[in-house]
Amino acid sequence: MSSLSSSSSSPVIATLLVSCRDRTGLVAALSDFVFRNYGNILDADQHADAETGLFFMRLCWDLRGFRLERSEISTALGDLAGRFELGWEITFSDERARVAIIASRTPHCLYDLLLTHQLGELGGDLGLVISNHADLAPVAGHFGVRFVHVPVDPADKLAAEAAHQRLLDEEKIDLVVLARYMQILSPAFVARWPGRIINIHHSFLPAFVGSKPYHQAKERGVKIIGATAHYVTSELDQGPIIDQDVCRVSHRDDVEDLVRKGRELERQVLTRAVRSHLARRVLISGNRTIVFG
Amino acid sequence: MSSLSSSSSSPVIATLLVSCRDRTGLVAALSDFVFRNYGNILDADQHADAETGLFFMRLCWDLRGFRLERSEISTALGDLAGRFELGWEITFSDERARVAIIASRTPHCLYDLLLTHQLGELGGDLGLVISNHADLAPVAGHFGVRFVHVPVDPADKLAAEAAHQRLLDEEKIDLVVLARYMQILSPAFVARWPGRIINIHHSFLPAFVGSKPYHQAKERGVKIIGATAHYVTSELDQGPIIDQDVCRVSHRDDVEDLVRKGRELERQVLTRAVRSHLARRVLISGNRTIVFG
Amino acid sequence: MSSLSSSSSSPVIATLLVSCRDRTGLVAALSDFVFRNYGNILDADQHADAETGLFFMRLCWDLRGFRLERSEISTALGDLAGRFELGWEITFSDERARVAIIASRTPHCLYDLLLTHQLGELGGDLGLVISNHADLAPVAGHFGVRFVHVPVDPADKLAAEAAHQRLLDEEKIDLVVLARYMQILSPAFVARWPGRIINIHHSFLPAFVGSKPYHQAKERGVKIIGATAHYVTSELDQGPIIDQDVCRVSHRDDVEDLVRKGRELERQVLTRAVRSHLARRVLISGNRTIVFG
Amino acid sequence: MSSLSSSSSSPVIATLLVSCRDRTGLVAALSDFVFRNYGNILDADQHADAETGLFFMRLCWDLRGFRLERSEISTALGDLAGRFELGWEITFSDERARVAIIASRTPHCLYDLLLTHQLGELGGDLGLVISNHADLAPVAGHFGVRFVHVPVDPADKLAAEAAHQRLLDEEKIDLVVLARYMQILSPAFVARWPGRIINIHHSFLPAFVGSKPYHQAKERGVKIIGATAHYVTSELDQGPIIDQDVCRVSHRDDVEDLVRKGRELERQVLTRAVRSHLARRVLISGNRTIVFG
Repeated sequence: MSSLSSSSSSPVIATLLVSCRDRTGLVAALSDFVFRNYGNILDADQHADAETGLFFMRLCWDLRGFRLERSEISTALGDLAGRFELGWEITFSDERARVAIIASRTPHCLYDLLLTHQLGELGGDLGLVISNHADLAPVAGHFGVRFVHVPVDPADKLAAEAAHQRLLDEEKIDLVVLARYMQILSPAFVARWPGRIINIHHSFLPAFVGSKPYHQAKERGVKIIGATAHYVTSELDQGPIIDQDVCRVSHRDDVEDLVRKGRELERQVLTRAVRSHLARRVLISGNRTIVFG
Repeated sequence: MSSLSSSSSSPVIATLLVSCRDRTGLVAALSDFVFRNYGNILDADQHADAETGLFFMRLCWDLRGFRLERSEISTALGDLAGRFELGWEITFSDERARVAIIASRTPHCLYDLLLTHQLGELGGDLGLVISNHADLAPVAGHFGVRFVHVPVDPADKLAAEAAHQRLLDEEKIDLVVLARYMQILSPAFVARWPGRIINIHHSFLPAFVGSKPYHQAKERGVKIIGATAHYVTSELDQGPIIDQDVCRVSHRDDVEDLVRKGRELERQVLTRAVRSHLARRVLISGNRTIVFG
Repeated sequence: MSSLSSSSSSPVIATLLVSCRDRTGLVAALSDFVFRNYGNILDADQHADAETGLFFMRLCWDLRGFRLERSEISTALGDLAGRFELGWEITFSDERARVAIIASRTPHCLYDLLLTHQLGELGGDLGLVISNHADLAPVAGHFGVRFVHVPVDPADKLAAEAAHQRLLDEEKIDLVVLARYMQILSPAFVARWPGRIINIHHSFLPAFVGSKPYHQAKERGVKIIGATAHYVTSELDQGPIIDQDVCRVSHRDDVEDLVRKGRELERQVLTRAVRSHLARRVLISGNRTIVFG
Repeated sequence: MSSLSSSSSSPVIATLLVSCRDRTGLVAALSDFVFRNYGNILDADQHADAETGLFFMRLCWDLRGFRLERSEISTALGDLAGRFELGWEITFSDERARVAIIASRTPHCLYDLLLTHQLGELGGDLGLVISNHADLAPVAGHFGVRFVHVPVDPADKLAAEAAHQRLLDEEKIDLVVLARYMQILSPAFVARWPGRIINIHHSFLPAFVGSKPYHQAKERGVKIIGATAHYVTSELDQGPIIDQDVCRVSHRDDVEDLVRKGRELERQVLTRAVRSHLARRVLISGNRTIVFG
């Protein structure tokens, strides 16, 4: 009997993410692993990509009555992984991911993340908010979240990044959310956080890569604008897309209107993407994502 | 070696739909049944409804190399069903469902279904088109589909329904699609086709039940109109909803504009619902549906 | 030269709303009135409703260089109104409407209105927030807006309404926004604020009138949920609709998911409706609205 | 008394499109022109673009009782145009534009345009369908529209274009609609039809310019795909956008699914754009459009 599941009133749920070459018997082998050990499967999703020949699975089960301790689960999964050449990752619902938000001056995405967190719907714990400006300190304070002002010296951006890294280590952060940070991170920093930095880009990528996308959108005369949440990679605005959304605009909308309408999209899309990531619904496959619904 | 899978160039796929009380081990038992018999699972979806305590699963596998003949599959599933008290239904991709469309005078839904069929994307075979008017005969003819004119005598509607039933039997129809038929079917007819008649209602149900929903929508001043595809039950416009869609309207739209905009919705929603049904993605649970994506 | 336009750095804009029986020459007469007096028309929208025979117009012009003082404008419009039997209302961009928000315990709509106001995009001044609970006092405080706790005694609801009315008078409020207030206002109170109370209903009206609309939506098995902002009239959830929006849901969404998804809709739709009202884009015609884009 | 308005049972409507430098008095001058001559304004839209300083207006009025004959209207407008330096164009509802469709092999856009025409909702007359393949001849035939097969010799594309031009002249065509024609037109041909060729591009431009946009979309892993109707200019996929629409996709959708979902978008967006153009709702301003609603 697992002491972990008994330590909490609501049941602890294990979530296993798997990716590997597709082959016969994977679904049965994985679900049988859970069943044989008296776990009750709550949710199972899988995707076999015909083009790449890869297989992805997300399996959630209730740990109440499960025969294996967490360390034993890892050992057993290690065996399965050897047999099927699996990439895998397991998380437990009572070990919540820790999140840092890096913002600049614009408040809308920050408010949305903080309010979602306050409502208990983010799916992780907010460790701190970092910003290169002091403006948003009262916002973090209002929600009772630590705020650290890390100014960025254009002549020495790496110093700010070193400060970021120290703070993220100190707070044991698992996920970094760029809530309209507006600064480009160095390849070295990005490389330290693969698949663990989420950015919101204020356009429907791949349209309008780079800066001032609303100006670009106005210039091109599009009738729909969008926002895109993606994992950050070393190539600007080219990382795997997690979520996107759009809204209709017209000739009546000037750039300020696009900015205002875009804000609604940005905050919704970013919060949705962060929630999907923290619910372990996102798998990365090359430069694309599988997002289980 | 299955003779069925070798009889065709593209692989035959078995699709199993299951509904039952939720209990531990269902996913493992069902996926293990496929795996033990050397089937390769292509798609698996399940849903456990916390409120009703019911479990639903859709399991697709490739029959190439599967050890059991179709008759043996049914016997084996019968055993499983007894053990777990399953409701189940299995279909094979080389035994396509046969579809009848019943229309009246408006052509848009009919064209959409016929064109989708011609493009090979409906997922079933069109047996015939029935209408209470002769107007659409050339449309069916253009697409090479049998058309039968069954006039409805208001004084004896059951005579028309008897003619319908004879035609549906004759063509061995599995699914009846009401493509803006505009006549109410008798409870007796509906009872003969449980979960096998799909209707398109030209509103966002449950708003605007009954006739002239666009007039009702104009009268109420809504800013969004919709269309709803649902299974027909004995209660008018109350059957399980399969799909819905909406579009934005304004004070500028008069009833004719609503009708025109609504047509786009109707045909898309109806065709999508029929495709979902024929792909065996829809399970009925009481007065609701589970539609696997 | 108007002293009004010179008192401010950004130009003062006059917005005229007109409704009347449709007749020849209305557009010309109204635009000519502006032109003859050296006003520059910035925006003009009109709508002739074929069904009711009514005409609606919204006309905005720059007051710089306009020959008439505000009092003279009113006199001149009074003359025109007599000639064409116009209903009319004129507002000036430097006389901002004053808004009160009445909330209960749920914070999302309140945050959205307060943040929109802080960003300078609401189009009016926030006088105060009233609530029947004290929970949201810190939210109002964070944004520097007055908060008044007016408990509601179920045995004497009119006492609370009397307190509301005193506060609204004291703050010279023009528009009351019910941000998920969850209490039904008395007909007498509503009658005192015709076309000046905006409510957010958490369903796609007219579907799911009344309480617990998300439970109703789950029960009916709809595939799309919505939210509706409307003017409050004495009939519950029957007032003129200003704006609506919807999002897609599935069998996977339980009532809590519907509530969460619905919150996004509620706050967007309510804020949009309030912005439209304050920008003088909404005219009421019977139980419907004309919302100029 | 105009002989034109009396020649038809439904009233003839004049639609004037104007573009010019913005200046005071334009709306009044133009609406006064109609009013002084006893015309009844049915619809008036205008847009002043703050960025470019340009003004656009669309004015519709009923010709019943209008004092001026059509030739006199042109003379009078010529005078106004001289005074205000207007670009202008007037059309009359009884002189319907003539439309040619150029298609290739894919039928969905063609069906949509032909059915819309048959329902009397296109707003113009279909002169003929041209295609570089014979496949769609029966489709045109079914709707009673002339079909001409003009094969394209890759070694001499100009010969096909010359044939097109002859057919368009012969049929007195005003608007050319490329309904998934898939061939690039020569700059010379395009130059002969400025603002009068509408193309449907199967992506959300400016994302995925050029060929195989659905493959590009799959490759990039976007979560939303789109379609764009635009005027054809000499730069590929760079012309003024008239309309766009999008739909959601996921990792489950392979390229074939994107193609199928995209078809729905393409036909809707193309037909909407053609209807907007034929209703004289579209004005071109540089590389952008104003589309009056």
